[in-house]
Amino acid sequence: MPFYPERYFDDFKVGDTFTTDSVTLTLAESLEFANRYDPQPFHLDKAAGYASLFHQLAVSGWQTAAVTMRLIVQSGYLRGPGVIGTGIDELKWLAPVYPGDALHVGGEILELIADAAGKRRGRMRARIHTYNQEKVEVMTYIANLSVIARPALARGSDE
Amino acid sequence: MPFYPERYFDDFKVGDTFTTDSVTLTLAESLEFANRYDPQPFHLDKAAGYASLFHQLAVSGWQTAAVTMRLIVQSGYLRGPGVIGTGIDELKWLAPVYPGDALHVGGEILELIADAAGKRRGRMRARIHTYNQEKVEVMTYIANLSVIARPALARGSDE
Repeated sequence: MPFYPERYFDDFKVGDTFTTDSVTLTLAESLEFANRYDPQPFHLDKAAGYASLFHQLAVSGWQTAAVTMRLIVQSGYLRGPGVIGTGIDELKWLAPVYPGDALHVGGEILELIADAAGKRRGRMRARIHTYNQEKVEVMTYIANLSVIARPALARGSDE
Repeated sequence: MPFYPERYFDDFKVGDTFTTDSVTLTLAESLEFANRYDPQPFHLDKAAGYASLFHQLAVSGWQTAAVTMRLIVQSGYLRGPGVIGTGIDELKWLAPVYPGDALHVGGEILELIADAAGKRRGRMRARIHTYNQEKVEVMTYIANLSVIARPALARGSDE
């Protein structure tokens, strides 16, 4: 997998895509996350998972979101000196994630809105897709990001 | 704080509200979450946090979301034999969260849409607000939930 360099608002283009490495979610990690952040029976207990809509012990959807963030950060694609997440739209948990599943992420830049006042920052929207090892899409959302512009000193001679 | 009993789709009403207990986020927990799920410098390093838009080492927004889930689960309010989160709309990280902050959650039922076919489940939308110890709203979102209906055998004599 590529590791993407730090980038500024000016470096992104609508339609650009990226992919991340994959990571396997262990049962121990799933139980630890569920115990701490989402202690519902179907995330903690095999029998309760079996009896639930998930038909098995299922990973918390919030852990899927957290692992997705780790994969994005580790890819370096959305990394920058001033990339800040401001929100999430239209998050959908599309299919269950089970302990042992290996997740990877793909993304696409949907929209870039320059900040008119001073051009110090811009807003970016990116569509995120999380897939399991069978390429089933398990989660998707739109990330809203605030991204710093390239400092004027480092810009071309038109500044 | 009350601990809410298990409930079915039929038990919720639009406009119902709930509140949760509060929990303090320690520095150790913040660093552990950031290391594992959101390893960005401003979540891991005091100096990087100071230099960032957050002006301090800041808690990952995904940890705020995860802690919010814990508080909701622990309150029991959205608990039921078949309450499943299907997605999240309009999540906004409104203000930074710092290690040592104490978070609590308030919620309101926005919408209830009965499943026409068989009435086995219904869809529920709830507005979630997360506040810090100064009652500053740090995060909000709309949760989309699928909720099982009360089994027919347990219903009243009109069935």
